[in-house]
Amino acid sequence: MRSFVCLLCLLLMGLVLFAQPQHPLTFLKKNEVTQLRKNIALYPLLNTSFQEVKNQVDKYVGKDVDVPFPKDAAGGYTHDKHKSNYTLMFNSGLLYNITGEAKYATLVKNMLFKYAKLNPTLGKHPQATSATPGHLFWQALNDANWMVYAGMAYDLIYEACLPKEKKIIEDGAFKPEVDYFIKDMPVWFDLLHNHAVWACAGVGMIGIATNNQEYIDLALYGSKKDKKSGFIAQMDHLFSADGYYTEGPYYLRYAILPYMLFATALQHKDPTLNIFAHRDSILHKALITCLQQTNTNGVFFPINDAIKDKDYTTNELVTAISISSTEYGIEDGLLTIAKKQNRVMLNSGGAAIAKEIAARNDISPYFPYKTIESVDGDSGTTAGVSILRNGKNENLSSLIFKYTTHGMSHGHFDKLNINLFDDGNEILTDYGSARFIGIEQKWGGRYLPENVAYAAQTIAHNTLVADETSHFKGDGEVGEKYHSEKLFSDVSNPEIQVVAAKEVNAYKDIRMQRNEYMLELPSGKKLLIDVFHAFSANKHQYDLPFQFNGQFIKASFPYQPNTQNLETLGKANGYQFLWKEASAKVKDTLAQFTFLNGKSYYTISSLIQDSAAIYFTRSGANDPNFNLRHEPALIIRKNGSNQTFVNVIEIHGKYDAVNEFSTDAYSSVKKINIIRNDDKMTIVEVVMAAQKIWIAQTNEDFNPDNLHYFSNDTLKFQWKGPYQVNVHKE
Amino acid sequence: MRSFVCLLCLLLMGLVLFAQPQHPLTFLKKNEVTQLRKNIALYPLLNTSFQEVKNQVDKYVGKDVDVPFPKDAAGGYTHDKHKSNYTLMFNSGLLYNITGEAKYATLVKNMLFKYAKLNPTLGKHPQATSATPGHLFWQALNDANWMVYAGMAYDLIYEACLPKEKKIIEDGAFKPEVDYFIKDMPVWFDLLHNHAVWACAGVGMIGIATNNQEYIDLALYGSKKDKKSGFIAQMDHLFSADGYYTEGPYYLRYAILPYMLFATALQHKDPTLNIFAHRDSILHKALITCLQQTNTNGVFFPINDAIKDKDYTTNELVTAISISSTEYGIEDGLLTIAKKQNRVMLNSGGAAIAKEIAARNDISPYFPYKTIESVDGDSGTTAGVSILRNGKNENLSSLIFKYTTHGMSHGHFDKLNINLFDDGNEILTDYGSARFIGIEQKWGGRYLPENVAYAAQTIAHNTLVADETSHFKGDGEVGEKYHSEKLFSDVSNPEIQVVAAKEVNAYKDIRMQRNEYMLELPSGKKLLIDVFHAFSANKHQYDLPFQFNGQFIKASFPYQPNTQNLETLGKANGYQFLWKEASAKVKDTLAQFTFLNGKSYYTISSLIQDSAAIYFTRSGANDPNFNLRHEPALIIRKNGSNQTFVNVIEIHGKYDAVNEFSTDAYSSVKKINIIRNDDKMTIVEVVMAAQKIWIAQTNEDFNPDNLHYFSNDTLKFQWKGPYQVNVHKE
Repeated sequence: MRSFVCLLCLLLMGLVLFAQPQHPLTFLKKNEVTQLRKNIALYPLLNTSFQEVKNQVDKYVGKDVDVPFPKDAAGGYTHDKHKSNYTLMFNSGLLYNITGEAKYATLVKNMLFKYAKLNPTLGKHPQATSATPGHLFWQALNDANWMVYAGMAYDLIYEACLPKEKKIIEDGAFKPEVDYFIKDMPVWFDLLHNHAVWACAGVGMIGIATNNQEYIDLALYGSKKDKKSGFIAQMDHLFSADGYYTEGPYYLRYAILPYMLFATALQHKDPTLNIFAHRDSILHKALITCLQQTNTNGVFFPINDAIKDKDYTTNELVTAISISSTEYGIEDGLLTIAKKQNRVMLNSGGAAIAKEIAARNDISPYFPYKTIESVDGDSGTTAGVSILRNGKNENLSSLIFKYTTHGMSHGHFDKLNINLFDDGNEILTDYGSARFIGIEQKWGGRYLPENVAYAAQTIAHNTLVADETSHFKGDGEVGEKYHSEKLFSDVSNPEIQVVAAKEVNAYKDIRMQRNEYMLELPSGKKLLIDVFHAFSANKHQYDLPFQFNGQFIKASFPYQPNTQNLETLGKANGYQFLWKEASAKVKDTLAQFTFLNGKSYYTISSLIQDSAAIYFTRSGANDPNFNLRHEPALIIRKNGSNQTFVNVIEIHGKYDAVNEFSTDAYSSVKKINIIRNDDKMTIVEVVMAAQKIWIAQTNEDFNPDNLHYFSNDTLKFQWKGPYQVNVHKE
Repeated sequence: MRSFVCLLCLLLMGLVLFAQPQHPLTFLKKNEVTQLRKNIALYPLLNTSFQEVKNQVDKYVGKDVDVPFPKDAAGGYTHDKHKSNYTLMFNSGLLYNITGEAKYATLVKNMLFKYAKLNPTLGKHPQATSATPGHLFWQALNDANWMVYAGMAYDLIYEACLPKEKKIIEDGAFKPEVDYFIKDMPVWFDLLHNHAVWACAGVGMIGIATNNQEYIDLALYGSKKDKKSGFIAQMDHLFSADGYYTEGPYYLRYAILPYMLFATALQHKDPTLNIFAHRDSILHKALITCLQQTNTNGVFFPINDAIKDKDYTTNELVTAISISSTEYGIEDGLLTIAKKQNRVMLNSGGAAIAKEIAARNDISPYFPYKTIESVDGDSGTTAGVSILRNGKNENLSSLIFKYTTHGMSHGHFDKLNINLFDDGNEILTDYGSARFIGIEQKWGGRYLPENVAYAAQTIAHNTLVADETSHFKGDGEVGEKYHSEKLFSDVSNPEIQVVAAKEVNAYKDIRMQRNEYMLELPSGKKLLIDVFHAFSANKHQYDLPFQFNGQFIKASFPYQPNTQNLETLGKANGYQFLWKEASAKVKDTLAQFTFLNGKSYYTISSLIQDSAAIYFTRSGANDPNFNLRHEPALIIRKNGSNQTFVNVIEIHGKYDAVNEFSTDAYSSVKKINIIRNDDKMTIVEVVMAAQKIWIAQTNEDFNPDNLHYFSNDTLKFQWKGPYQVNVHKE
């Protein structure tokens, strides 16, 4: 009988062993570790990355690491401590697997014990100001970050824990956090939004680490497990089919991390899910699209809320590139970035990158930037964003033309906005966001009130404002219901690239249409021709701002500077933040304004038909806490029902301050004429010093096969499709 | 008879040959060329420098180079053309010697022929606005530049010219220019000033190139040859004995070029002059002092008029370093800079540098910056400038304390001014100069009216302004008569460095004394303690501005922001250019202001005894042409007869925007007390979070051997000499 019982025990234990997968299996697989250990000795970049992690962790080994009771907002001690704690636990877990040294497991275990004691005692964080408060942190999002990393850390030392230790950790450190998300905040957990991606990844990661299939299912399919939310739905609905993330590249930079980390754990846990292949390898498309949406210096384009300090050397992108290299293989463009990151993750993808970098001397210092057009929306709407590019390496010019959906809670009211980057610099700028992330004195590192009040408003962008009111009257919920519509584009010829889009919902009685032409003339000169129509049955005041970044060099028109007294340009909708530095009344003229940025001159040449006002403004008014940057803009104001703005933005000349040379410092645009402009078509003539350019475009019929005609006494055009550009040497 | 005549001819020819030295002998010596040719094949940096010159010149070989009739101001076509022409001639002359190819001599010759035709026809330049107009250029200074380079170019092809060609060039291209300087502008030619250094070098260079001893003597000893002016006097009087150039490093950057070039030609022409050894090798001292007066990024400190774009990679410094290496030998610090310049001159010094760079892999990426104190004045006045330094490489902190003479026509009204550089950035700034050099649209590239009206005024600096009036009432001629006086300094301990200076002439009834302490605490924290006394028998309004460069983080005191309407801080003396963004009334408190620059926080903690006003201002008012940068300042205003400003400027914390960490973001200064303050001594106590610092200083007796005592109920100090700093851990 006794032996029978023993046999039964053994059988049961065997079943348990069989049912319980071997750990680790979130970030690393057990069988990955041996090879990794060998590669660390072989490849310098992997080695230095390992040493960095080791140096960081070794400072804490054998010490009592503080796990403080939550008190401070972002930037404060307890916030930063819990943040550095989860990284420390993850890194120490990695080291335990790589080195086999028990001290690293002990470090993690002791910290998790402290969390096991702390977490059940926690309620809403004392500094919580959002609708989704956290426990360890002021917002639940940061708790989710903690869950992803603490979950991986636990998985990495799982095999070093006794059953009773496991119980303490799982019940104490993890269950209260998971319960809080699932039971107290299911609505938030079920959102399709970057916060919820983190939340699902957090719950799911803990599920995999603790062998809890229920948690995994909640993470994959939502709190109701109805697949309307959860990680799979987040993969299906937050990206367009070509990988554009609806919140924009700055937020994808952040969201790519839980996507990649949880997908890795899922791949290890259940390869049959084939998660990395899901939706035609959407995670790979997302990564590449996100990297294409950076400037040559690696900074993410400021689409929607975005802090301009962030570039692709952030930890999120290091992780994403190492994982992508594991799952999708090595790619040249990613090697370029990995080299700049100068760091890889301690996994097989990181090892593969380090091996390539050690072996190859032909890795380009430049990411292969190209013209890229992305749809925005999960089911192929006509919304999207086009990035037109010309030139290469340092001399790349990138025009961003945004006709997306609103972009969720971080969206700005900037329908049909454009931005220009050139020579590595932001030339026509987007304010980005008003936030000092991680700086406690600046409202606990949160988004500042000026973010919604100014940075998100239409006037802070480079697109049309009617009647000093933002698009959708500045109501994000209304904005979420609509999207702009791409009319056509043609980027087949790098010397003549064109995109057109329209927006009919931002103002109820105004149809806006913008055609952007990015040209390279035979001389090599680059210029943009920007044709912006506002059609309405009613009279409006139309403001078209150009947020320029550079030194004012010369205006061709007389203006009245406000030299002794400044007032604001307006009272609301962002206008209250603008000082009116100068104003001009112009009539039937070509108004030209030249500024200098770095080594290049830029001239905006604006056709003024009838009369208009021009303002030079600078942000910084109504800013009692000095939260805003002080940035200049040129604003062209016209009144009427239908109005067309034709602007030529020219990149010209070279300025060398060191050697005191300045060449081609003057605009070549001599005149702009509108030859015809009505519902059907617009014909624009740009007279330059050495050539004439004609733009013929249709305004209603965008069928690529239809023929169009125009003739007058001196000109005759016939073209097929929605546009034609002719350049004639004089 | 026939053979006798022939013999006589030969003898005469021999005499002529004997009397005429072999050319070239200005920039290169004939015997230098063969070795140079060999070295070009051997050393990569010399080779690429040669190829750059060759590529530049080859574009013009066989072409008809335009020598236009002068018309435009700086930045315009004719200005830039004549400027590029003289470089082209010089470079082509070099190539003729190195390659032996006649086409390079022909290029120079043809251009000089055109100048020989043009120059005799020229009068005052049509764009001349200065008192010293040029012929080829708007100002005579640029004509002098042309003479130096055209003179060297002619010398380089001298041997390739027929006697009649020489006559055409010497009479046509050169004589009118020399005559214009000597006969029409002797007063200017005889100045002790960077323009006249160029003028003398120009005349002297042409003298050496054309074997005209008269020109050489005029250049060396002045238009009256009385040695009161001319090149030797310029070497004797424009530098202090330790190599500080009275106009400051930005202008020495410019003046070092004619000094070095003409000295080279003199050395070749008449080695007995031993010009490079003159005044204890003053040219070498000048070069090293000038390089010590740069920031870690190579930009010259903005002492006096200075454009902040200029760094030590300019052509002037490339030339100076190559020549210094020829004449004074190779030095490690210069190799560091030569490597950053990535270019050498085609002479034996350039070859020696290229050889070292090819052979050595231990050249530091950092110039050996150190604390350096320079006297200003040819005969050892008490005026000067101290640069206190702490830390090294990227973490270098440099405090500039200026107690110089006025600095001639480019001087600013900034007695006892300080500037701080840290972590590669300018933290407490100097506006520099208001000028867009080489940009025609900005007043022909000249100094803008705002240069004198704002940039030179006291309020644009970090020093005391009494009664909203600049030092010397803003009169440069008065300022030239006086200088500040150093009281003492002690820089022997890098952790406690101190300099004190006084100024008694800037305001007729005010004695100003400033003591600067640059401390490194045992914790490694760096801070400045700035004690600024104003002693007067009469009541005054005293303003102490801190021009800070960074993001406003937090002020400890309540202030009234001007959110809807801005007015200027004052009406004149630079105050009219400042918008008053906020003002505060403070009383008996510690007023603290924290800002962020790059990765570091900086806090100014100001002791307010009794009452004071504090203003936050920004430059940019009264600037109808948008010539000024918009830069913030904190201004502390006190009223009274005697006033003491005690400010602690603390460098603290780290901000990492990419990884969202912010540490040590708050000031550690808790309190500042003045324990005693009178004519005799000042005792200051700074209470910090973890220690107390006491500063005891004398205000009248600076004898290093005298003993001083202070005691009250709780404190007792005894010290020797003019100061004592005690740091006590709490």
